[in-house]
Amino acid sequence: MKLNKEQQQEIKELQSQEFKTKRVTAPELEKVLFEAIPVLDHGFIRVIDYMGDDTSIVQAARVSYGKGTKKVSTDSGLIKYLMRHWHSTPFEMCEIKYHVKLPIFIARQWIRHRTANVNEYSARYSILDKEFYLPSKENLAAQSKNNRQGRGEVIEGDQANEVLNLLKKDAEQTYENYETMLNEKYDGSIIDKNKSGLARELARMNLTLNTYTQWYWKTDLLNLMNFLRLRVDPHAQYEIRAYADVMLDNLKKWVPITYDAFIDYRVGGTEVSAKGKIVIQKLIKGENINLEETGLSKREWNELMLAFELNEKIV
Amino acid sequence: MKLNKEQQQEIKELQSQEFKTKRVTAPELEKVLFEAIPVLDHGFIRVIDYMGDDTSIVQAARVSYGKGTKKVSTDSGLIKYLMRHWHSTPFEMCEIKYHVKLPIFIARQWIRHRTANVNEYSARYSILDKEFYLPSKENLAAQSKNNRQGRGEVIEGDQANEVLNLLKKDAEQTYENYETMLNEKYDGSIIDKNKSGLARELARMNLTLNTYTQWYWKTDLLNLMNFLRLRVDPHAQYEIRAYADVMLDNLKKWVPITYDAFIDYRVGGTEVSAKGKIVIQKLIKGENINLEETGLSKREWNELMLAFELNEKIV
Amino acid sequence: MKLNKEQQQEIKELQSQEFKTKRVTAPELEKVLFEAIPVLDHGFIRVIDYMGDDTSIVQAARVSYGKGTKKVSTDSGLIKYLMRHWHSTPFEMCEIKYHVKLPIFIARQWIRHRTANVNEYSARYSILDKEFYLPSKENLAAQSKNNRQGRGEVIEGDQANEVLNLLKKDAEQTYENYETMLNEKYDGSIIDKNKSGLARELARMNLTLNTYTQWYWKTDLLNLMNFLRLRVDPHAQYEIRAYADVMLDNLKKWVPITYDAFIDYRVGGTEVSAKGKIVIQKLIKGENINLEETGLSKREWNELMLAFELNEKIV
Amino acid sequence: MKLNKEQQQEIKELQSQEFKTKRVTAPELEKVLFEAIPVLDHGFIRVIDYMGDDTSIVQAARVSYGKGTKKVSTDSGLIKYLMRHWHSTPFEMCEIKYHVKLPIFIARQWIRHRTANVNEYSARYSILDKEFYLPSKENLAAQSKNNRQGRGEVIEGDQANEVLNLLKKDAEQTYENYETMLNEKYDGSIIDKNKSGLARELARMNLTLNTYTQWYWKTDLLNLMNFLRLRVDPHAQYEIRAYADVMLDNLKKWVPITYDAFIDYRVGGTEVSAKGKIVIQKLIKGENINLEETGLSKREWNELMLAFELNEKIV
Repeated sequence: MKLNKEQQQEIKELQSQEFKTKRVTAPELEKVLFEAIPVLDHGFIRVIDYMGDDTSIVQAARVSYGKGTKKVSTDSGLIKYLMRHWHSTPFEMCEIKYHVKLPIFIARQWIRHRTANVNEYSARYSILDKEFYLPSKENLAAQSKNNRQGRGEVIEGDQANEVLNLLKKDAEQTYENYETMLNEKYDGSIIDKNKSGLARELARMNLTLNTYTQWYWKTDLLNLMNFLRLRVDPHAQYEIRAYADVMLDNLKKWVPITYDAFIDYRVGGTEVSAKGKIVIQKLIKGENINLEETGLSKREWNELMLAFELNEKIV
Repeated sequence: MKLNKEQQQEIKELQSQEFKTKRVTAPELEKVLFEAIPVLDHGFIRVIDYMGDDTSIVQAARVSYGKGTKKVSTDSGLIKYLMRHWHSTPFEMCEIKYHVKLPIFIARQWIRHRTANVNEYSARYSILDKEFYLPSKENLAAQSKNNRQGRGEVIEGDQANEVLNLLKKDAEQTYENYETMLNEKYDGSIIDKNKSGLARELARMNLTLNTYTQWYWKTDLLNLMNFLRLRVDPHAQYEIRAYADVMLDNLKKWVPITYDAFIDYRVGGTEVSAKGKIVIQKLIKGENINLEETGLSKREWNELMLAFELNEKIV
Repeated sequence: MKLNKEQQQEIKELQSQEFKTKRVTAPELEKVLFEAIPVLDHGFIRVIDYMGDDTSIVQAARVSYGKGTKKVSTDSGLIKYLMRHWHSTPFEMCEIKYHVKLPIFIARQWIRHRTANVNEYSARYSILDKEFYLPSKENLAAQSKNNRQGRGEVIEGDQANEVLNLLKKDAEQTYENYETMLNEKYDGSIIDKNKSGLARELARMNLTLNTYTQWYWKTDLLNLMNFLRLRVDPHAQYEIRAYADVMLDNLKKWVPITYDAFIDYRVGGTEVSAKGKIVIQKLIKGENINLEETGLSKREWNELMLAFELNEKIV
Repeated sequence: MKLNKEQQQEIKELQSQEFKTKRVTAPELEKVLFEAIPVLDHGFIRVIDYMGDDTSIVQAARVSYGKGTKKVSTDSGLIKYLMRHWHSTPFEMCEIKYHVKLPIFIARQWIRHRTANVNEYSARYSILDKEFYLPSKENLAAQSKNNRQGRGEVIEGDQANEVLNLLKKDAEQTYENYETMLNEKYDGSIIDKNKSGLARELARMNLTLNTYTQWYWKTDLLNLMNFLRLRVDPHAQYEIRAYADVMLDNLKKWVPITYDAFIDYRVGGTEVSAKGKIVIQKLIKGENINLEETGLSKREWNELMLAFELNEKIV
């Protein structure tokens, strides 16, 4: 991530703002407001604005005239109760807005979360930055052999170098040709003054999917947690997890009580099917279990044992 | 609207809060924050929180590192452009949260706007306040004769008194029987200590639709304008318009530039169909027009003439 | 539920329709199409239209040119996998549309599910039917003593009769006064030809919340399951559960494979928190557990034991 | 668009299906069901399923027990009324599902319409087809000089050839390197049996944005019209307009009455601001107009004159 001088200056100006407000504030989150927190090789996440804190959830759940409650302990009990019983609407009463820089192929995954507001940098209107994502070597994984949608062993040695060379060379070349077609360099300088450039909305099609884009992205706390639950999961693609991890840290600064409940009931929790419940019951009672009679597939059995870290029972 | 002492005190405490923040603020809106602005006979609207201001729209439209622009005039030009061309996503970048007290039959109309977050006071859990809406005499209208969905002349004299008496008597009686079934008064006092009360989730069914309820309601600026456009319209039911009018005034305090564009392009504007455009063209050119040849129904013709205040051409 | 002759005839006509289509059909659901299935004392549910079946889920998940797969067993395996891992978008590819008649206080609960399309019978435009919900005696429950949002013991004897009398009397009287204010009977006959009636949008406010309304309600399969998961739960209010139970039966007729997976993974399943997982592990390993050290509240502990039917461990 | 034999066979099988149903059908749309209608050089649109027709809109608007009305003329009048007055919920009662093949840069534009259901072909799981979009020469436009977001003159001669060569060469080369990194050809054959391939979720980042993807996309009639209104507009990017034009033709086959109203009130209509209305009034009355006094910017003035084809008044 290379912010230019002007961008650094603009951010500094925002960070030095100080206003008075009657609205609730989240002091820990205020500390990182506007800051460009680096993600991947050229990406970042910036918290631009937020609305509400833990007390806002309680206040809305109680449809209160004042603060929701007087005591943090009461707030905490109620928030845990709401989380546990999927009373989700009070969590919608807080809102957060981000500025994110991310590779296009990750942006395409991200945008599938529809209950959010988005303003993306327009490549019909502007020239995209000359920046593309190249994985670091430890993230250069082979296709998984037992999970068609995941990664396996890390690729090393010559093959790793070849992959990185191809990615770099292709991204640079397609970007260069993008400039040629536009008849304009990434910095806005015209290449040939006697020519018109190809329309930007067309030229962009020559860029590779690891080119960086950026957007403003705003969502409420409930939908942020839905996003994070899926994207901090070890099965999520590493590149989007890198963003989710930063956002999870933001969450802790913003709404610490909700964060704790979220970790306990969602991120760290598990689901058990009706058939799985019977298996657990039998295990607790020390009864014999015949895999076939459980109605679980071998895969389901193993997922269940893994969830409870009963690794010795995996078949 | 009769706020009790405790409620007044709670509101006063919120209003005397003062925090420091780096977030943008809307100073005019801050002045009315938390205040219970009266609507109808017992209802109110309170602005509880907000996020963003006019500059946030520009900032998101530009996917900016700092403020969107340096000058108010540039902001204004861009906001007008966005509004005119239905570039709606930047307006989603601002958010507002209300606490509203309103009659149930109006709440049912209101909730049809689905893109908002709601937490309603639960009548499964709590006893509803002993307050119901009675129209003032000047709002006691007869059914319209030419618009099946609207109001006609005001009802006066004995009939008006009879209507108000019936509304009052029925609301009071059904509320009293609600208390009897609950075995509990509105203030929480038990009626007969030897009896159990009917479940609240059941007893509530005896209340009339003019009973007041309350909720926290949060939406983004785009959807707020969609709501207001429909609900400040003269065809909207008076009782919901009374709320919308207050919210329109809030809008002006919050995002004055957007407010101006909204009034010009949405509230004060009109739509003209393909067939209507030809009629307008001919009128401008002074050509003869035969209603039948226009393809407009008589009703459409009149709606068009009315939109341009060409009252003399109404047929 | 008293359908009049005209309504019965209209339904019969729809049921005798037969068209040819290339679209997939759900033969078991076709059998009940348009039928008014009774719910509560005057309500009903009618399936009006649907789109897709189990194979449509597989087809979309595979982004297929033809059917998703050749074999039911493959379909079933994939649908179970999608359900287990919350790959939810393929379930959005099926759609269902209902006509529902239901008491207003239940309609208010129902509409909180926002991701659906609704067209409600307009009481601004038309006169509501003279029908209101009266619970049967076995559903006349007292307020729960240990769950502020639920029902306790059944109310019996004189108190039950009194409650039913009050509900009946108040509903009849407020409806009668509704007619008086409208100057029009429920059947459209004018009461006093020399008077104008009060606007319908106003008169309706005198009705009690157990008055029946009706709507067309359409949703996709995913959101239908979200609705059902919450509303067939024993903690849901009985009156909405009565509707959900019929819809669950429809689900089985429509998409039987999905239905099985839904029952196993959602309705019959449970969630376990991070702290709860450690408790389960210890129980399986036969280790001693000190409630305090688990970090669970007593309530959480009991909920966990109940979920696995370890009733003897409830404290 | 080159469908392989298997795909052609799968489509043929679907097209030869014939089921009986009691649901309403749209006979003209049935004729094109499942057919791959070509768009751009390798894309297509296929209608996979639909629910409802024109009568379903009327039926829902009336909350009817049978068909909405008896006569087509009544249906037509009501549908026009609903469209004109933005009574939008009845249009949500019809649903359509498409299978679309389209270039990724267009998919990114398309997905900004959030109120739809989507299942995209997964490049984490599968290898993308070896197909990329190359514009035909007449669509090779230069960047517009007066509209920063549009196209200007067509690029011709050597420059056109150069652009097409660059696009073709870069797409082919990046795809070839995609195969190298995957260690697998587009047809599934392994390149080097002693090597593991790079994870698909990573390798895809090397592809250019004109690579084709495909998805199942489902939406209701209201949101389809919102999509079409924006995307058949002459200001929409040509490549998405090509898809929208086909879908507009589908709309006519599916709901012909709604189609007519949509063309009249939406596609062919225009909006006039409050200030614009005064200008139109004055033009009709033949009064003198001073541009400055109107409050319109020069640009707004011209947009208004253009809307009414008063080209001689453009300044």
